[in-house]
Amino acid sequence: MSEIRQDGATKRWVIMATERAKRPSDMAAPPPGTSDRQARSADCPFCPGNEAMTPPEVLAYREAGGEADSPGWQIRVVPNAFPALSPVGEVAVHDPHGFTWLTGVGRHEVIIETPLHDARPDDVDLDGVARVLEAAAERFDALRQDTRLSYIAFFRNHGRAAGSSLTHPHTQIIATPIAPTNVREEIEEARRYYDDRMTCVYCATIRQEAKAGDRVVLDTDHFLVFEPFASRWPFETWIMPKEHASVLAGTDPSRLRPLAHALHKALKGLYDALGDPAYNLVLHEAPLRDTCEDYYHWHIEILPRLATAAGFELGTGIWINSVLPEQAASYLRDFVAG
Amino acid sequence: MSEIRQDGATKRWVIMATERAKRPSDMAAPPPGTSDRQARSADCPFCPGNEAMTPPEVLAYREAGGEADSPGWQIRVVPNAFPALSPVGEVAVHDPHGFTWLTGVGRHEVIIETPLHDARPDDVDLDGVARVLEAAAERFDALRQDTRLSYIAFFRNHGRAAGSSLTHPHTQIIATPIAPTNVREEIEEARRYYDDRMTCVYCATIRQEAKAGDRVVLDTDHFLVFEPFASRWPFETWIMPKEHASVLAGTDPSRLRPLAHALHKALKGLYDALGDPAYNLVLHEAPLRDTCEDYYHWHIEILPRLATAAGFELGTGIWINSVLPEQAASYLRDFVAG
Repeated sequence: MSEIRQDGATKRWVIMATERAKRPSDMAAPPPGTSDRQARSADCPFCPGNEAMTPPEVLAYREAGGEADSPGWQIRVVPNAFPALSPVGEVAVHDPHGFTWLTGVGRHEVIIETPLHDARPDDVDLDGVARVLEAAAERFDALRQDTRLSYIAFFRNHGRAAGSSLTHPHTQIIATPIAPTNVREEIEEARRYYDDRMTCVYCATIRQEAKAGDRVVLDTDHFLVFEPFASRWPFETWIMPKEHASVLAGTDPSRLRPLAHALHKALKGLYDALGDPAYNLVLHEAPLRDTCEDYYHWHIEILPRLATAAGFELGTGIWINSVLPEQAASYLRDFVAG
Repeated sequence: MSEIRQDGATKRWVIMATERAKRPSDMAAPPPGTSDRQARSADCPFCPGNEAMTPPEVLAYREAGGEADSPGWQIRVVPNAFPALSPVGEVAVHDPHGFTWLTGVGRHEVIIETPLHDARPDDVDLDGVARVLEAAAERFDALRQDTRLSYIAFFRNHGRAAGSSLTHPHTQIIATPIAPTNVREEIEEARRYYDDRMTCVYCATIRQEAKAGDRVVLDTDHFLVFEPFASRWPFETWIMPKEHASVLAGTDPSRLRPLAHALHKALKGLYDALGDPAYNLVLHEAPLRDTCEDYYHWHIEILPRLATAAGFELGTGIWINSVLPEQAASYLRDFVAG
């Protein structure tokens, strides 16, 4: 008998389909081979030496110093060459004949995480992951000054099935003049829960998941990494800070380093367990100037694209998942431990 | 400059990304070849002669009569062999330690639309499409009697990118004991609009779209087929009845035949224009026993899977679309006319 599970924070429903059940190991693919590895690609706009193929950098870390937009960087942040939103102009609301639209003002940047074209979790150390978070935090600080913006989305697409067209490891930032629907909905539910019980629903989830234990992948001093009770996708993995905060703010290394550790463990675990699956990684945090401090709780969601959302999911918003999160967690723990 | 458009009915935001703009014809693929056509497949559970490979049929049309679960049918409805939900049992709510779940009770059926294994829109006539709608209406009437159910989802997945694993043309019905989140959200917004203006937001959309004209693909006596102003996907196509009704109910041929005509035109148009794109088709209507008659308006959404929802879309609920619906409609009209 299937279970129809409800996510405690969003009230989202997910059908855990036992008739279609798959073993976690059915989802595994062999890791990518090593024979065709490519440290640099001549036509990759993110590779060292090709800096002129991107707009001028807005941030870079160069251990040994050096000119902007030249090789020698460890990490590099550039405006997206084909931005979804434009940095120039004012946000204006138009409403001709009942059709509402805004001018497409915003920011769209790319964090090029490493000079190595086909870097994998194996090739990246804790410093490398921490550097990405540090660069992101710096850019968040800069973008927060732009009062036209309402939200800064931070996400990573890996693999073609996850909508990524470029191999070279990169994370994106899209800052919008509107607050995202999904975040608004999460916040609305979180506020309702808080008003009922005077506690944060995500804090409650952490306590419940840590106590139940069977969906926990990694439990550190500062973070709980787990497969949520109502996982939409096989191996959906959340990273949640134990310290209540509605935004991941600041470049304080004492905060970023434990996150880098949890993130690295989770991504390397998924890579080792499933053979380099395509995934989307998304930061969820409160909008700008609407910090919802008491009741919202920032976190990271990793959504492996091991299944395709079809008509039922897109039409109803109810998901069907063929792998139980308890089984996914049990399988994944073996690859994350140590 | 991109436009950030808002869907009038759902308040969903979509970025129309001009920097990434594609011409509608860039989305076209050559139509599938004819050399490898296959009228019947020995291992397809939906092909005539393989009736024993499915659970016993719950409905079939046989022009010349004949035994149940034997060849000779024009259309056949069977329970899904791997149902997401089980027809047996009571709906019970469980809430151990704050994790809420329901027993997975519901119905999951498949409408096998035609005996022809690889039928395409070219092979199907108006009678064939009308038959699918008639069979669906019969099953809706039967399922409505099951008081454990709250919603009947009717959807079609076509092509691998749309989550379909079987070639043989089929449509699915999943009836759930819960009302879908997406429909609830549509209804909530529609109610708010109605309370503000004493009119249905979908009726208003039809009037506005018909007047604007540039997103209309087909305008018949009973239906408007159009690319919505805030299309999430390239060539997203909606079929909306001009007569206000919150559910598509009844097997009255005078209602189903005009819908079959609009549906056939839309699907054949997309097939001819884009070379057999993968798509999801979903009926949106009011839940059972919650008919929202004054302010909700049933309709069909066709979502071609010509792009991949990535981290930004999944995380924020904001979509990025690289094809303007006005251009898609203009391109599509040439294939639908006549």
